[in-house]
Amino acid sequence: MNDAADTNFPITDRNRIRRRHERGRFDKATVYDILDSAMVAHIAYVINGQPFCTPTGFWREDDVLYWHGSSASRMIRNQSDGVPVCVTATHLDAIVLARSGFHHSVNYRSVMAFGTARLVTDAAEKTRAMDGFVDRFFPGRSKEIRPPNGQEIKATSFVVMPIDEASGKIRSTHVSDEEEDYALPVWTARIPVRQVLGEPELCPRHLPGLEVPPGMRGYTEGRNLDEVLLEAYRMEYGTRD
Amino acid sequence: MNDAADTNFPITDRNRIRRRHERGRFDKATVYDILDSAMVAHIAYVINGQPFCTPTGFWREDDVLYWHGSSASRMIRNQSDGVPVCVTATHLDAIVLARSGFHHSVNYRSVMAFGTARLVTDAAEKTRAMDGFVDRFFPGRSKEIRPPNGQEIKATSFVVMPIDEASGKIRSTHVSDEEEDYALPVWTARIPVRQVLGEPELCPRHLPGLEVPPGMRGYTEGRNLDEVLLEAYRMEYGTRD
Repeated sequence: MNDAADTNFPITDRNRIRRRHERGRFDKATVYDILDSAMVAHIAYVINGQPFCTPTGFWREDDVLYWHGSSASRMIRNQSDGVPVCVTATHLDAIVLARSGFHHSVNYRSVMAFGTARLVTDAAEKTRAMDGFVDRFFPGRSKEIRPPNGQEIKATSFVVMPIDEASGKIRSTHVSDEEEDYALPVWTARIPVRQVLGEPELCPRHLPGLEVPPGMRGYTEGRNLDEVLLEAYRMEYGTRD
Repeated sequence: MNDAADTNFPITDRNRIRRRHERGRFDKATVYDILDSAMVAHIAYVINGQPFCTPTGFWREDDVLYWHGSSASRMIRNQSDGVPVCVTATHLDAIVLARSGFHHSVNYRSVMAFGTARLVTDAAEKTRAMDGFVDRFFPGRSKEIRPPNGQEIKATSFVVMPIDEASGKIRSTHVSDEEEDYALPVWTARIPVRQVLGEPELCPRHLPGLEVPPGMRGYTEGRNLDEVLLEAYRMEYGTRD
């Protein structure tokens, strides 16, 4: 799924970086890696002029984002032309304490993706999305679990959005102070932040003797979630490149 | 800052929980704890019908949210009556793998807060916000660093939003499958996710012999960021209760 990864998103008035433009990234390789390292995105949409921001599980296939039923579903259902949305994924990487309030910061990687979202209504596309949602995070798992039944397919909403424009934004440096401030006796540091996995807690009604499936072997205690998710993504989609 | 913590937010058409309403929380104590455990929120706002979703540092004072200059600032500047926004803070707590795709889930705590945002323009309020931004996360730090100068105050934007309505949403349970599916030979687990601190990396130009300030002593390697942030919040605002 990286056939377009050597190209850039167009820069328009919508995805132009307005603050700290030196942190902007428009190449698809960087934007996709940030998206594919995340499990949850925040979706902004508008109902009658009121903005809503909903956290939800999402994933990417080529230039298209999918996400799992949200409170926007009802609204989107009645908009056959689709609705404008902004999908944002963010990783917090460090807290940066400086010698002035002005230079306090955080290190992060984020992507804002813009496009027109519509509800997945076709039953075949919906079934494919249900499997894709599981397999994207847990490679091969849709073949290991009970397949969805008609009632579940009916009860599940998926939203699909081809990415029209996107921009990434990254801060990854250390403390950056005014030159004259380095002489101040202020305790100053960068504190790393990681999202890590704990030890998997088996379901209390788990059958005895089941082995950890190959697609789940990366999910081990202490690993960084973003790295595991990117690895899982490549395990699932790698062969399609 | 918990004087109103035994009361509830009103439930309106805007903050009503539409999906999984059993996960909804409207009491201020729960909503505030979720907000005060976070450093970054996602802000949804609308420009000419286009929604935007921006990640940004934010904090709470009583029923009011503040956040740090965003690309919305320019837009808000020209709207003296303020603009409608939705501020969402989310903690991912676990990944939940079930025996069917339908019951795969995540554990999380999230808050959506609604209100009308305006730019902080008064110089005194802005200076107070700059100190508040630092002290909320790092208790007492505004007194330890170089104070902001006029140019920095001019270059910094803060947005303020009294919370009109808010809702929390929590999933914290284990795997929940259809009764007949528990007999299936599927590896099934809840995998905890935590956002943890690494060891503070001192600034390479750090002066020798500086002790860790009292307000920073909670920021130690391996601790959960959400717990440290809530602790810092209570350290800074606790005496005002």
